[in-house]
Amino acid sequence: MNQETFGRIALIGIGLIGSSLARVIAREGLADETVISTRSPATLEEARSLGLGDRYEQDAAEAVKGADLVIVSVPVGASGAVARQIAPALKKGAIVTDVGSTKRSVIEQMAPELPDHAHFIAGHPLAGTEKSGPSAGFASLFEDRWCILTPQDDVDPSAIDRLTAFWEACGSRVETMDAAHHDQVLALVSHVPHLIAYNIVGTADELENVTEREVIKYSASGFRDFTRLAASDPTMWRDVCLHNRDAILEMLSRFSEDLTALRKAVRRGDGDALFDLFTRTRSVRRSIIEAGQDVDVADFGRSIAGGRDGDGAKP
Amino acid sequence: MNQETFGRIALIGIGLIGSSLARVIAREGLADETVISTRSPATLEEARSLGLGDRYEQDAAEAVKGADLVIVSVPVGASGAVARQIAPALKKGAIVTDVGSTKRSVIEQMAPELPDHAHFIAGHPLAGTEKSGPSAGFASLFEDRWCILTPQDDVDPSAIDRLTAFWEACGSRVETMDAAHHDQVLALVSHVPHLIAYNIVGTADELENVTEREVIKYSASGFRDFTRLAASDPTMWRDVCLHNRDAILEMLSRFSEDLTALRKAVRRGDGDALFDLFTRTRSVRRSIIEAGQDVDVADFGRSIAGGRDGDGAKP
Ligand SMILES: NC(=O)c1ccc[n+]([C@@H]2O[C@H](COP(=O)([O-])OP(=O)(O)OC[C@H]3O[C@@H](n4cnc5c(N)ncnc54)[C@H](OP(=O)(O)O)[C@@H]3O)[C@@H](O)[C@H]2O)c1
Ligand SMILES: NC(=O)c1ccc[n+]([C@@H]2O[C@H](COP(=O)([O-])OP(=O)(O)OC[C@H]3O[C@@H](n4cnc5c(N)ncnc54)[C@H](OP(=O)(O)O)[C@@H]3O)[C@@H](O)[C@H]2O)c1
Repeated sequence: MNQETFGRIALIGIGLIGSSLARVIAREGLADETVISTRSPATLEEARSLGLGDRYEQDAAEAVKGADLVIVSVPVGASGAVARQIAPALKKGAIVTDVGSTKRSVIEQMAPELPDHAHFIAGHPLAGTEKSGPSAGFASLFEDRWCILTPQDDVDPSAIDRLTAFWEACGSRVETMDAAHHDQVLALVSHVPHLIAYNIVGTADELENVTEREVIKYSASGFRDFTRLAASDPTMWRDVCLHNRDAILEMLSRFSEDLTALRKAVRRGDGDALFDLFTRTRSVRRSIIEAGQDVDVADFGRSIAGGRDGDGAKP
Repeated sequence: MNQETFGRIALIGIGLIGSSLARVIAREGLADETVISTRSPATLEEARSLGLGDRYEQDAAEAVKGADLVIVSVPVGASGAVARQIAPALKKGAIVTDVGSTKRSVIEQMAPELPDHAHFIAGHPLAGTEKSGPSAGFASLFEDRWCILTPQDDVDPSAIDRLTAFWEACGSRVETMDAAHHDQVLALVSHVPHLIAYNIVGTADELENVTEREVIKYSASGFRDFTRLAASDPTMWRDVCLHNRDAILEMLSRFSEDLTALRKAVRRGDGDALFDLFTRTRSVRRSIIEAGQDVDVADFGRSIAGGRDGDGAKP
């Protein structure tokens, strides 16, 4: 058997992330048997009708029995309960991992519940969309995306190697880092941007002088992008906020300080300060495109559905 | 001659917006002659090599001579100077309009300079990208986008009708409103979102505990979207801030108040308040998609370059 393949893989939670895993596992032949578990009969039925696995169990403990790799893909606030549920049923030597967007809290919740004979390695694929549920997944979600593993110091290195090989087989690039640092980086690149987007869409929803109809009608580049972020799953994001509180609050307070300075520059009509900031931020974008994290295609809100007509601009 | 066609159209400023106008004018045959003017020889040369017009003039006054429609597409802070320059050369009965992102200030700057015999109608096509310059334009930019006209009370209605017909021929839907209201709506749907994006990318650039390399490497959905907004033209956005100051400051202060409440909810671990906000904002997104302002396709950062493989998810 190869490094990256497993006899039996159990997927606990089969939403966007879990179902994308199921699809890529099937496509790449990474498991002899894939067992799927989710708490609600409706979601389990949806997974079954999509043909995502070989076996379907509502009981998570039942699902992990005999599994060599267990991947927990539920909102981070539910990690502890799931760990408690599966712990007694875990096979000796099983690798247990998760995909949650926060890592310190998941480790604090799961590690104490799991038996010593299991290899627990917390993880987070930096890949997602604003959709959720089993139908939202797709096999290429993880391609060329980073997956960050945050193993504790005492984890068996060969288990880390196997999990790394698995994620690489899913198309990801794997990086290992400290859970606390993960939480700070993610607060900045993902959590705070989402919170800000939720916040401004919420502000818009409450104004007196601009109607919701107008907001919707004229939502131009800018607001439109924020509404997409602000359409993400409320449960997932509530849990992210509750479980990465310190890092999020620290970043938010830095953001607010800077915003105060920016407001002052606008109030004073300090064109030079504004120009300086707006120039500095441009270079960050350039680096992101060079790093292959986004494509350098102008966005005008219809890039996918519409496409442009033949005047030289490639979509 | 039809409502929407003109003998001679002069385009003053030939960046993203001006050059998109040149392209759609040519495609739709909206002018017998298109004269292009921009202050720098380099940009004028670029426009010429792209074949955007019939005649090229560095001197704006020279360009507007004999023109039936003059469209000013320069940063809003330059509107007054351009109006002063072209005023003496305007043909009797010419329609003069602009495309600037703020309207009260443009009217204050331009209206006093222009002769009574010209019909001045300020305007703003809600269409754009984060790119600039003559090569960034494309003929379909205005398709299915709103163009807001903010004519003063004493403008000849037939001039408004002709300008409306022109924008409709460019593919736009035209709406008329008060300039002050335009500035409030745009502060919300475009100006403040851009400022917030600039602000967070600026914050990221200055952190000690997360390196710029990490920001770039892990920029996930969220931050990545903000960097695109924050890569927009610094001159244009400096001018927008300086010229829509009041509405922007008012929206920013509402946003900051709400952010303070949101921070408090995070600090207190008030999951219900977070869940409520995150649920409320979702419905705004739904309405925007129903209104055709964006497409309901999940974004995972490679929608254009990559494309998904065949597992059912349509790109
Ligand atoms: N979405 C993203 O962009 C993204 C990206 C990277 C990581 N993540 C992380 O991935 C995890 C799953 O996210 P997702 O987007 O796949 O979510 P999702 O599509 O909403 O699916 C959630 C799954 O978790 C189950 N679940 C929900 N609440 C639960 C509870 N209290 N106890 C047990 N199971 C529960 C759901 O089961 P039922 O349907 O049966 O209730 C479903 O199977 C989260 O931790 C999230 O932070 C998400
Ligand atoms: N970009 C958008 O998304 C968007 C959307 C809607 C409306 N607008 C508005 O459209 C207008 C033009 O924006 P754009 O994106 O087309 O800009 P752009 O691509 O940067 O082009 C700007 C044009 O204005 C000229 N210009 C710059 N500074 C000038 C000055 N001080 N005096 C005279 N001419 C000057 C430039 O001339 P040289 O190159 O020769 O210096 C160039 O021809 C702005 O008012 C903006 O607010 C923009």
